[in-house]
Amino acid sequence: MMTMNRWLTFLAALLLAGCAQTGLRGTGDLGVVVERASGRIAIVDTTAKSIIASVHGLGDLSHASVVFSRDGRYAYVFGRDGGLSKVDLLLARIDKRVMQAGNSIGGAISQDGRLVVAQNYEPGGIKVFDADTLELLSEVPAQSKVVGLADLSGNRFAYALFDKGEIWISDLANPRDPKTQKYPAGQQPYDGLVTPDGRHYMAGLFGEDGIALLDTWRPELGSRKILEHYGKGQEKLPVFKMPHLRGWAVAGGKAYLPAIGRHEVLLVDTATWKEAGRIEVKGQPVFVMARPDGRQVWVNFAFPDNGWVQVIDTLKGEVVQTLQPGKAILHMEFTPRGEQVWLSARDDNLVSIYDTQSFARLTTLQAESPSGIFFTSRAARTGF
Amino acid sequence: MMTMNRWLTFLAALLLAGCAQTGLRGTGDLGVVVERASGRIAIVDTTAKSIIASVHGLGDLSHASVVFSRDGRYAYVFGRDGGLSKVDLLLARIDKRVMQAGNSIGGAISQDGRLVVAQNYEPGGIKVFDADTLELLSEVPAQSKVVGLADLSGNRFAYALFDKGEIWISDLANPRDPKTQKYPAGQQPYDGLVTPDGRHYMAGLFGEDGIALLDTWRPELGSRKILEHYGKGQEKLPVFKMPHLRGWAVAGGKAYLPAIGRHEVLLVDTATWKEAGRIEVKGQPVFVMARPDGRQVWVNFAFPDNGWVQVIDTLKGEVVQTLQPGKAILHMEFTPRGEQVWLSARDDNLVSIYDTQSFARLTTLQAESPSGIFFTSRAARTGF
Repeated sequence: MMTMNRWLTFLAALLLAGCAQTGLRGTGDLGVVVERASGRIAIVDTTAKSIIASVHGLGDLSHASVVFSRDGRYAYVFGRDGGLSKVDLLLARIDKRVMQAGNSIGGAISQDGRLVVAQNYEPGGIKVFDADTLELLSEVPAQSKVVGLADLSGNRFAYALFDKGEIWISDLANPRDPKTQKYPAGQQPYDGLVTPDGRHYMAGLFGEDGIALLDTWRPELGSRKILEHYGKGQEKLPVFKMPHLRGWAVAGGKAYLPAIGRHEVLLVDTATWKEAGRIEVKGQPVFVMARPDGRQVWVNFAFPDNGWVQVIDTLKGEVVQTLQPGKAILHMEFTPRGEQVWLSARDDNLVSIYDTQSFARLTTLQAESPSGIFFTSRAARTGF
Repeated sequence: MMTMNRWLTFLAALLLAGCAQTGLRGTGDLGVVVERASGRIAIVDTTAKSIIASVHGLGDLSHASVVFSRDGRYAYVFGRDGGLSKVDLLLARIDKRVMQAGNSIGGAISQDGRLVVAQNYEPGGIKVFDADTLELLSEVPAQSKVVGLADLSGNRFAYALFDKGEIWISDLANPRDPKTQKYPAGQQPYDGLVTPDGRHYMAGLFGEDGIALLDTWRPELGSRKILEHYGKGQEKLPVFKMPHLRGWAVAGGKAYLPAIGRHEVLLVDTATWKEAGRIEVKGQPVFVMARPDGRQVWVNFAFPDNGWVQVIDTLKGEVVQTLQPGKAILHMEFTPRGEQVWLSARDDNLVSIYDTQSFARLTTLQAESPSGIFFTSRAARTGF
């Protein structure tokens, strides 16, 4: 038998080892990679450029999206099957999980971090959850698929209704009693986004050309239509994939938009919301994303060009780099200050990490059919 | 004697309790408040709105500034006495500390988080440290006081030389062999800042009117003088305190600058860098800081008006709120998404926390002569 002293020493050593194993670390350089085919996420460290753990049992993760708690410790994973999972990144386990709908395409977290909101296809509408407990606090029924959910200041949320052709803003100042205002959008809004300052909400239209714009700082002015030629247009070009509006980049007073059906990125002046130019690219753009400083815009493409990525220098106004990071590039995410970009190559089962200054590939990580990549720095930003 | 089983149960319980005590938590909602008179920082939690720990022994913290490690776990505290301390926010203790100069006024951290750089008065120049170990890697001697140090993309740093009238940019791609380029600035630059996108470096001049501007994306164009009437001017107004340039707000295509010696905030168009208006305020502004979304600009004042704070609505272009948060308001910091602002009231020994939407005071925290307030979200931003 050990003596009491030796037991205490042993215990202290175990205590320290145990703490280290259970994840005492900062969360500012963490993130997740969605492994869509496996119902799994990989927890990644952007400083070490490595996968540090995996969490299983998250259901159908095709088209899954992720937001983060205010402290960076928890990832809220919205599955296609309506599952909402709160994952503890430090302990690498599911903290809580609810099935909240039959068919869902994502969610958002409130400015103060207290509310998680899911946008649903089936049934439509949004549901409001306590971010800590995942208790259902309220819902806004809509008899319509909801798309393009985005958080605004003051615990408000903007979203678009595909079947109703409207933009709604729900004020969750009292989360058990949402107050909703409705604005016309146009035919079949299919996605939406808010500008990085949280001011302008835009909804892309599937049923007609143009984009619906709402100034959420002055909602009393109502919505209006901009870029009336934006869309599939008259020529009926084959559209391989409707681009993600969430991918829009805003940099230096211009928004960079994926053209629909064309091998172009469109430039829009954010003061007038009129087209300010076009840049030719290698395929039909899907995501058009700005490096955090706005100096570069990275573009990936729909099939058959989805093995390519191009980089636009916003100062020069031209493509300055063309890369082949892997097969079927589905998503990109910049590190918080933009020195690296991570790209998921679904059909190569890897994540490629590039230095954005030298364009050197720094490393690759193995992942099963990786799709969305999300870093905890999103917790500190609006509209993600 | 306990049996082995009971020991193991006891041990497991202690293990869990010990881990909780040793700080397993996210770091995204942490920050520090400098208690300048006590050589101490308070570690704060912006979700709980509370002080969770204190760390002593940091030396002379008058004019101290703080930057954060990439993971949000460590605060680098630059003391006036040349002390550089790496503080572990999770374990609430000093991890490493070096005396790196005789008189220092701050520092910065590189884009990739690997390098911490101190700017010094005595001796002048900058010193480059390994962010992990605080090992001295190199220095750039200058025979001049260095002010306005700011991190740029690509592990470059910009700073101004008071005694030489120059702006220098040091490239630390190889941190043991800095490459420095020099640009004329004007007489006695006394502070500097970089715009939120990391592009434009500006140095305010003490020895003449005007501001030196360098486009760090096109440094080959050299520096130029803007706002030629910005400064103390001909009228020789009494200037109670030179405003902090670091406080400049950039929002919606305009920069909001503290006028020198006048009860005004100046507006500057960031496309042309020409004056675009003035807003009258209650005193001589010191910090002019934008809420992260740019909708509001908060202003504090020099003595004798340093018990007031005013809020400008950037959409209306006017002061919409006047507050008295306490005696001697020295600094302000917004939470990452801007729903709260924390203000240090030195002579009331408290920190006041306000809701930025309702302007309600949410709570106050006791602190000894609080000055700078810094939140870990700075780790993800450029130029902080």
